[in-house]
Amino acid sequence: MKTKRSERLIDMTHYLLEHPHTLIPLTLFSKKYESAKSSISEDLTIVKHTFAERGIGFLETVPGAAGGVKYIPKMNKQDIEAFVNDLIDELNHSKRLLPGGYVYLSDMMGDPKWLRRIGRAIASQYMDTEVNSVMTVATKGVPIAQSVAFYLNVPFVIVRRDSKVTEGSTVSINYVSGSSFDRVEKMELSRRSLDMGSKVVIVDDFLKGGGTINGMISLIEEFNSEVVGATVIAENIFRGERSVKDYTALLKVDNVNTEDRTIEVSAGNFLSSIK
Amino acid sequence: MKTKRSERLIDMTHYLLEHPHTLIPLTLFSKKYESAKSSISEDLTIVKHTFAERGIGFLETVPGAAGGVKYIPKMNKQDIEAFVNDLIDELNHSKRLLPGGYVYLSDMMGDPKWLRRIGRAIASQYMDTEVNSVMTVATKGVPIAQSVAFYLNVPFVIVRRDSKVTEGSTVSINYVSGSSFDRVEKMELSRRSLDMGSKVVIVDDFLKGGGTINGMISLIEEFNSEVVGATVIAENIFRGERSVKDYTALLKVDNVNTEDRTIEVSAGNFLSSIK
Repeated sequence: MKTKRSERLIDMTHYLLEHPHTLIPLTLFSKKYESAKSSISEDLTIVKHTFAERGIGFLETVPGAAGGVKYIPKMNKQDIEAFVNDLIDELNHSKRLLPGGYVYLSDMMGDPKWLRRIGRAIASQYMDTEVNSVMTVATKGVPIAQSVAFYLNVPFVIVRRDSKVTEGSTVSINYVSGSSFDRVEKMELSRRSLDMGSKVVIVDDFLKGGGTINGMISLIEEFNSEVVGATVIAENIFRGERSVKDYTALLKVDNVNTEDRTIEVSAGNFLSSIK
Repeated sequence: MKTKRSERLIDMTHYLLEHPHTLIPLTLFSKKYESAKSSISEDLTIVKHTFAERGIGFLETVPGAAGGVKYIPKMNKQDIEAFVNDLIDELNHSKRLLPGGYVYLSDMMGDPKWLRRIGRAIASQYMDTEVNSVMTVATKGVPIAQSVAFYLNVPFVIVRRDSKVTEGSTVSINYVSGSSFDRVEKMELSRRSLDMGSKVVIVDDFLKGGGTINGMISLIEEFNSEVVGATVIAENIFRGERSVKDYTALLKVDNVNTEDRTIEVSAGNFLSSIK
């Protein structure tokens, strides 16, 4: 039975949202809905227009026999600005500072409402870049990596500081950790989890001296792979020269008040990286 | 400017999918689209029908002044069966067995394509239950918990075996671990991460003796909260009596061949729990 346009638009929207960054041949839709390709093309024009208009994302049309459509989740600049401001409101002056200068974020990093926005925002930065994998270090970065991976629709890999017996053989490197650059630590990645020649986006919660990100960069080199970018939720206050220069941060910690356990944050350099 | 029906259906579908298990008043849509409530009602009838027809989920209509609609992600039984069969195909006879009888799953647990299906399937089991939180233990369970939490749209919390300085004050318990019930270990949860009186779903990758899940149950009791269910990807072979009786498992490990490093799995008791 032929499907009505209204039904096609709804199901198509669902299908596209569940398959971001995936080339979908028009024939898939015309078979699914038993409809002519010309009708499907008209549907997709409406979807494309609405996705753009409503800030849902970009629908790329690839012409030709091997062509089709590709949904690229994209948060527009205005929505990202609103999101960064919401982050600032959430963190500023709230009692999130823990002993030792750590910031409590676990509630937000466990909340799908925040994670969806984090994932869409960071994925937007890499929407025009070829990415094969999202990398982070256990354990704080994992929810961020998974959220970004959902919107880029690529696997994410978790670098560990401790060897896990369930990972199989691993590649490990030593890296310099700590803001005083005086501690050498080990991190490792399961050999099976990253293909040689991958293009990798690094994500993490906080950036201080940059030791952890530098460690991941070294590890990526061991897999003959390439870092295409690094993004963190917040760059911390750091006196001295960071060992990582090329990164984007959604937020910037401006001030830490240990007495009333609050921090002050403002927008990081992420916003200016978005077209 | 009034919005066309086609545009409304597309944007509405996106909005509902991004806000599962959330009561959305009709006025939100009528304002968003500058359309009469009667038009919005008609739209929602079409959406409801298509969501049901296409196995996207269930659109619950709550009548009255405080009413609205609620999208409940639901995988139908047929799709869950197909998914469980895909899992079986992926695991059966593949060289996933690691030394010590562990099973390598990290690739699947880092792949959004698998995680979306895992999240939707497990969330379907709890679609009619009040759930406030999804709990797991670090680190293997985290991607599963996050995926289920995405579809239930509730926070997830991570129990840790090692204390993290960035968690703030924690509640810890001792539990009996290991299939021989001879090791006592500690697990803990940040005090801030779970409200008293919560209704909690426990998820994990593997179930062997049940010690870890039992530990989480004790921890949930410490928070005066309630376990509403426990679901794992696979129940392992276990000789003896499990300390946990009430759980569902997507898969069941039937046989382990240490020589050729393969396992044999079949469908677990999860399927029969789905209406």
